[in-house]
Amino acid sequence: MTHPSPSQLAYIPFVSVQNMMRLVNSVGTETFIRDLAGYIEQDFKRWPEFEKTSRVASHSVDGVIELMPTADTEHYGFKYVNGHPKNMHQGYKTVTAFGVLSSIATGYPILLSEMTVLTALRTAAMSALAAKYLAPESAKVMAMIGNGAQCEFQALAFRALLGINTLRLYDIDPHATQKAAWNLTAQGFEVQCCKLSQDAVKGSDIITTCTADKQYATILTDNMVGEGQHINAIGGDCPGKTELHRDDLIRSSILVE
Amino acid sequence: MTHPSPSQLAYIPFVSVQNMMRLVNSVGTETFIRDLAGYIEQDFKRWPEFEKTSRVASHSVDGVIELMPTADTEHYGFKYVNGHPKNMHQGYKTVTAFGVLSSIATGYPILLSEMTVLTALRTAAMSALAAKYLAPESAKVMAMIGNGAQCEFQALAFRALLGINTLRLYDIDPHATQKAAWNLTAQGFEVQCCKLSQDAVKGSDIITTCTADKQYATILTDNMVGEGQHINAIGGDCPGKTELHRDDLIRSSILVE
Repeated sequence: MTHPSPSQLAYIPFVSVQNMMRLVNSVGTETFIRDLAGYIEQDFKRWPEFEKTSRVASHSVDGVIELMPTADTEHYGFKYVNGHPKNMHQGYKTVTAFGVLSSIATGYPILLSEMTVLTALRTAAMSALAAKYLAPESAKVMAMIGNGAQCEFQALAFRALLGINTLRLYDIDPHATQKAAWNLTAQGFEVQCCKLSQDAVKGSDIITTCTADKQYATILTDNMVGEGQHINAIGGDCPGKTELHRDDLIRSSILVE
Repeated sequence: MTHPSPSQLAYIPFVSVQNMMRLVNSVGTETFIRDLAGYIEQDFKRWPEFEKTSRVASHSVDGVIELMPTADTEHYGFKYVNGHPKNMHQGYKTVTAFGVLSSIATGYPILLSEMTVLTALRTAAMSALAAKYLAPESAKVMAMIGNGAQCEFQALAFRALLGINTLRLYDIDPHATQKAAWNLTAQGFEVQCCKLSQDAVKGSDIITTCTADKQYATILTDNMVGEGQHINAIGGDCPGKTELHRDDLIRSSILVE
């Protein structure tokens, strides 16, 4: 059986992590996030045009692997993303991702891209976009519970879209807080490291919880959260990955993205 | 925000179509299919160990894009595959595919591979493996309805596993039949081109239908199929992609893979 060499039609561009970082750095992270939030907002305005498919999750003892497909009439796309909190101890990242964009007309992929960086940026942009509509307009101070890599993207997004410049950090691992504080101070934020989560939360206008464990944890208890505070709870996206106390949820207005 | 250059852990091997063809040709296509059928058979014997997830299909006017995930306790894998019958007219293939194999422990991909060639080989190996258990042992002659690229893989698989060497070809497009006949004769098959599908089917021990249209077609009508004939119906894998008459199905023993 003879096989001709591949058609030019079979080649597709690939965006590596390095290329993505080069792009983000050339634009500037906050500008990138602001533009990204603009695209997300446009997509929400044409929500009915999208094919909505539940993410397909494969759960294991230590983590989860998910496929997230969607489509409109022109493009199909999916993201592959994992979540493995124990990875950090072995030099791997907790969350990595890649994705493919395809043509609906031919079914051919037209772009293969890293989405580890993109997921961090998109999550941050979406959080800040939601807060722009839902948080008190006068918000100035944000508590950040969970100080892993994602919290830095969150901070940049909330400054880009809401002008938040004062942060109170807390993590069960003080080293994570120190590292985030160092990086965020270098970015011009006013940062306060807290030894207790309630110290971070008290008096903050916005509370971002940004944790990844499947430990059925309660990051925020009921008595910690006051009237008018906006909670941006990112981590609880599958069974076991909880962050909020049940009573917090009951007395809140909830918007799920 | 600083970003270290990628860890070596972030690089994964990629198998291109050219690499896959080099591998298949170095082993020999029929040997490759025979070995592949062996692995498939082993996997069927440990069926309960797999996570069974329905394929996730995105249907459009001209075709379908599907994700097919599965996992055991060590590995997770998914295939991306499209089906666009009109593609042929524009120089694209009807079916293309790629896939990723990942580690359950870390969620990291460990292999990215073309699966256009692999899908053709795997479909052929699976067909012949099923026929090894289900077709009459004395089978010598196979009818092939639908003479696109897949039919050549099917022929090689049925020769590799069942010793079938006599083929009767039919396609609504006589050029497809001519091309397949040319290639298969070169491979040492005894080939007869038929002007009517019933001529191909009559007296054949095995009937392979191998079509891709979503036209609610009936490739085999009830009166065409006789007692003891084994039908290997490949094409009908989603709504609209039909091949068999309802009455053929009613009086058959059916095994769905």
